[in-house]
Amino acid sequence: MPTIDLNSDMGESFGVYRLGADREVLRHVTSANIACGFHAGDPKTIKATVRAAVEANVAIGAHPGYNDLQGFGRRPIQMSADEIYDITVYQIGAVKAFAEACGATLAHVKAHGALYNVAARNHDVATALCAAVRDVDRSLIFFGLSGSKLIDAANEAGLRCAQEVFSDRTYQDNGALTPRGDPRAMITDVNIAVEQVLTMLDSKRVRSVNGAWVDVQPDTLCIHGDQPGAVAFAAAVSAALRDAGVTLQTPAIQPHM
Amino acid sequence: MPTIDLNSDMGESFGVYRLGADREVLRHVTSANIACGFHAGDPKTIKATVRAAVEANVAIGAHPGYNDLQGFGRRPIQMSADEIYDITVYQIGAVKAFAEACGATLAHVKAHGALYNVAARNHDVATALCAAVRDVDRSLIFFGLSGSKLIDAANEAGLRCAQEVFSDRTYQDNGALTPRGDPRAMITDVNIAVEQVLTMLDSKRVRSVNGAWVDVQPDTLCIHGDQPGAVAFAAAVSAALRDAGVTLQTPAIQPHM
Amino acid sequence: MPTIDLNSDMGESFGVYRLGADREVLRHVTSANIACGFHAGDPKTIKATVRAAVEANVAIGAHPGYNDLQGFGRRPIQMSADEIYDITVYQIGAVKAFAEACGATLAHVKAHGALYNVAARNHDVATALCAAVRDVDRSLIFFGLSGSKLIDAANEAGLRCAQEVFSDRTYQDNGALTPRGDPRAMITDVNIAVEQVLTMLDSKRVRSVNGAWVDVQPDTLCIHGDQPGAVAFAAAVSAALRDAGVTLQTPAIQPHM
Amino acid sequence: MPTIDLNSDMGESFGVYRLGADREVLRHVTSANIACGFHAGDPKTIKATVRAAVEANVAIGAHPGYNDLQGFGRRPIQMSADEIYDITVYQIGAVKAFAEACGATLAHVKAHGALYNVAARNHDVATALCAAVRDVDRSLIFFGLSGSKLIDAANEAGLRCAQEVFSDRTYQDNGALTPRGDPRAMITDVNIAVEQVLTMLDSKRVRSVNGAWVDVQPDTLCIHGDQPGAVAFAAAVSAALRDAGVTLQTPAIQPHM
Repeated sequence: MPTIDLNSDMGESFGVYRLGADREVLRHVTSANIACGFHAGDPKTIKATVRAAVEANVAIGAHPGYNDLQGFGRRPIQMSADEIYDITVYQIGAVKAFAEACGATLAHVKAHGALYNVAARNHDVATALCAAVRDVDRSLIFFGLSGSKLIDAANEAGLRCAQEVFSDRTYQDNGALTPRGDPRAMITDVNIAVEQVLTMLDSKRVRSVNGAWVDVQPDTLCIHGDQPGAVAFAAAVSAALRDAGVTLQTPAIQPHM
Repeated sequence: MPTIDLNSDMGESFGVYRLGADREVLRHVTSANIACGFHAGDPKTIKATVRAAVEANVAIGAHPGYNDLQGFGRRPIQMSADEIYDITVYQIGAVKAFAEACGATLAHVKAHGALYNVAARNHDVATALCAAVRDVDRSLIFFGLSGSKLIDAANEAGLRCAQEVFSDRTYQDNGALTPRGDPRAMITDVNIAVEQVLTMLDSKRVRSVNGAWVDVQPDTLCIHGDQPGAVAFAAAVSAALRDAGVTLQTPAIQPHM
Repeated sequence: MPTIDLNSDMGESFGVYRLGADREVLRHVTSANIACGFHAGDPKTIKATVRAAVEANVAIGAHPGYNDLQGFGRRPIQMSADEIYDITVYQIGAVKAFAEACGATLAHVKAHGALYNVAARNHDVATALCAAVRDVDRSLIFFGLSGSKLIDAANEAGLRCAQEVFSDRTYQDNGALTPRGDPRAMITDVNIAVEQVLTMLDSKRVRSVNGAWVDVQPDTLCIHGDQPGAVAFAAAVSAALRDAGVTLQTPAIQPHM
Repeated sequence: MPTIDLNSDMGESFGVYRLGADREVLRHVTSANIACGFHAGDPKTIKATVRAAVEANVAIGAHPGYNDLQGFGRRPIQMSADEIYDITVYQIGAVKAFAEACGATLAHVKAHGALYNVAARNHDVATALCAAVRDVDRSLIFFGLSGSKLIDAANEAGLRCAQEVFSDRTYQDNGALTPRGDPRAMITDVNIAVEQVLTMLDSKRVRSVNGAWVDVQPDTLCIHGDQPGAVAFAAAVSAALRDAGVTLQTPAIQPHM
């Protein structure tokens, strides 16, 4: 019986500034990636988001990023592997403490924005991320783009990992996502989005924009929560997957992981 | 046989900026209060300081402060009790993760600067600090000014606490430290400093600047590390205490705690 | 013929975070107080807001606050008068440069949030603010709560000042605003709000919540822009004042100033 | 008669953290590049440094950098040209306000660290920097690496510029500095350093590490102030240049500029 995790970035408000519809999205996902105060989030927001995830019975993850609130972690900062390690340990620790203060357990780590993208292509950065995760708690599950350097590094570090796939994005022949600048990048039709996920679950591959088949490991599906229509899209995708007989389940309790 | 802990603030460098003589001070103390990145410190500095403390066999503590790098945490910021709780959980978590990443254990928490001073007088702030410590890990030892609201709050929260005393500062009749603006505030003569500590250990009280006896509980002695002559003072005090037959020991392993 | 300025806080977005409806509010006011990057705002936001104000033919002002993005400048930070001076010069300079880069002129300065409130009651803080304004450019107009220490300090510094009044807040007998916690604090009925302003313009006084008359100098009226219904309220108040024959005009060109 | 400016980075302390020996260096240079609070510096430090430069009769410049205090502006951050423009206008404005508050005039702008290095090679970044300088005040003199994109962009923007050369660094055949990792990168012998500058002044060229001649325009010489022995080196170089008949003079008053 096919099983997949639905994950979404959360806790990206800051101070008086509101971002995302966390409580609505929490009703449709199984894993929450919680911003740690570097690219977004602050202690109050982390606490509120952890508590909301616990109440919604959604797995709690840390979502570390570059220390760049003004750029929302979307601008690569040229950092050494040691610096990547350091900021990752720090950020995981902050969210982990809130989880423990709620009587909950930190389940996973997923890097944010530019840090995720840089690490997906750069083995040294991916390795530094994974070393940080492993050193803080080797039972944490590492989320990364299916087939990327993130997965290689997690395997080398001996971490359990959840390979991430996308329903609202198309793929290139090499397994990378089609850049947003390309008119074919986005999938906005829920039916096509769900079909792409079901194909992935069934065949462990996805059809690229050029018609090629690309291998993927669909452990967890990225659900965007901060765009117009995001909640409706999340609700529709999760409902359609359930209707198709897919079990939605956080990786920590997936038997094969 | 008299026993006391010697604690010192550490890890207060930031980026290229160096502060304090941590490695030298570590040779003379038994507990290190490590800045958490809010009033001072950064992920790289925390990692280096935790590692140095582990190598020196010194107990690791978190040293949370107000989020004010420019003011070094010395300027009170008017925050709600909830905000105090939130920034304390966050900061403890960050240092705790580095301790765990080193295979070490976080042993204690001591608030920094204005946060320490405000909480020593304000029961609500002290209670928020203690709730954060307890919720993250109820086995953490809470350091606070002997006889202050910090100790009341720790007791109410069910936390083990270490009451802090000073060797280089004089006391007022009410148990508060003489303000630095007062010419009688500082004790710079090592012999007088050591004598004050030995009296505290022997009698559980200290003579105020006005000659009154004030009750104190000398569990841990504050050793300053960032002033000219600080390392020499620390070395002299620790040597003199040892010579006087005092056991220098972190509170976690003190039998009476 | 009665004349008043309508001023509103602007440019309080930060990075990806949006706050306020600046472009809509700009259609109804004559002075824009632009956040300087300490309590809110960032270089990109300042540039966009300055440009929008220039296009709308609205006077440009700097809106300095405490350096506390997370608290939105609403939490008093205990700073020395010198520190207040320093952060004020810095923030004015930042917005002034954007004004000049647009070929425009910085017209005024209004402190934000807790800095405004603290200075309204504390003569030393108000004096430090005014010294900063005067030293950067003595032709700048200083906005402050009518009858407060802000006005005393501006007069002592030889600055032109615009005394600020409120249409959506009630007054206490001593001229202070009724605290928001009091159920009588807010005026939500546009007709009552406009009536309060017309009375101020006509008689230079306002009726307190207790029925006492309080002297005011209604040079500029605060228009809030970041609350639900704020734009509609601003539009209604400005239209009603115009209908009542009041000239809406920035202080810089008011003949009596 | 040969003339050159000596410039040095200053005001790079932050809060309680001290960096550099600004007052000593000010006795040997003619232009001060003052950190603006992004990579280093804070309002209090800017004020103190501007005042010290005014007292020493040294020209005041803004020294903008990436917004990265932890990395001291040495880590490239991938920013758009618009973002570069915005942070540069902001930072110039901040220092300019302190200059004006002292009755002084901002004379020049020199980018810091990674921003300087990136712009020296990237025409778009250099153009954004120059547009910001020009828009704030087209009489400002723009400092940039001799022969680099910084100079091209300044010329295109119609800015006066001062081409920067080095006495303590060797050059490559293409005019770039030899990277610090190369053992031939540094010149530590004052006589050789002075000889290199005199050759530049005499012949408008410098001998590369490979013996090739590289064209340079020695308008201003970089004097480092934050390394061990920096003050002594600065004193020795400035004295030797004076002894050799070179006039040390800020670019603003150099006749040919």
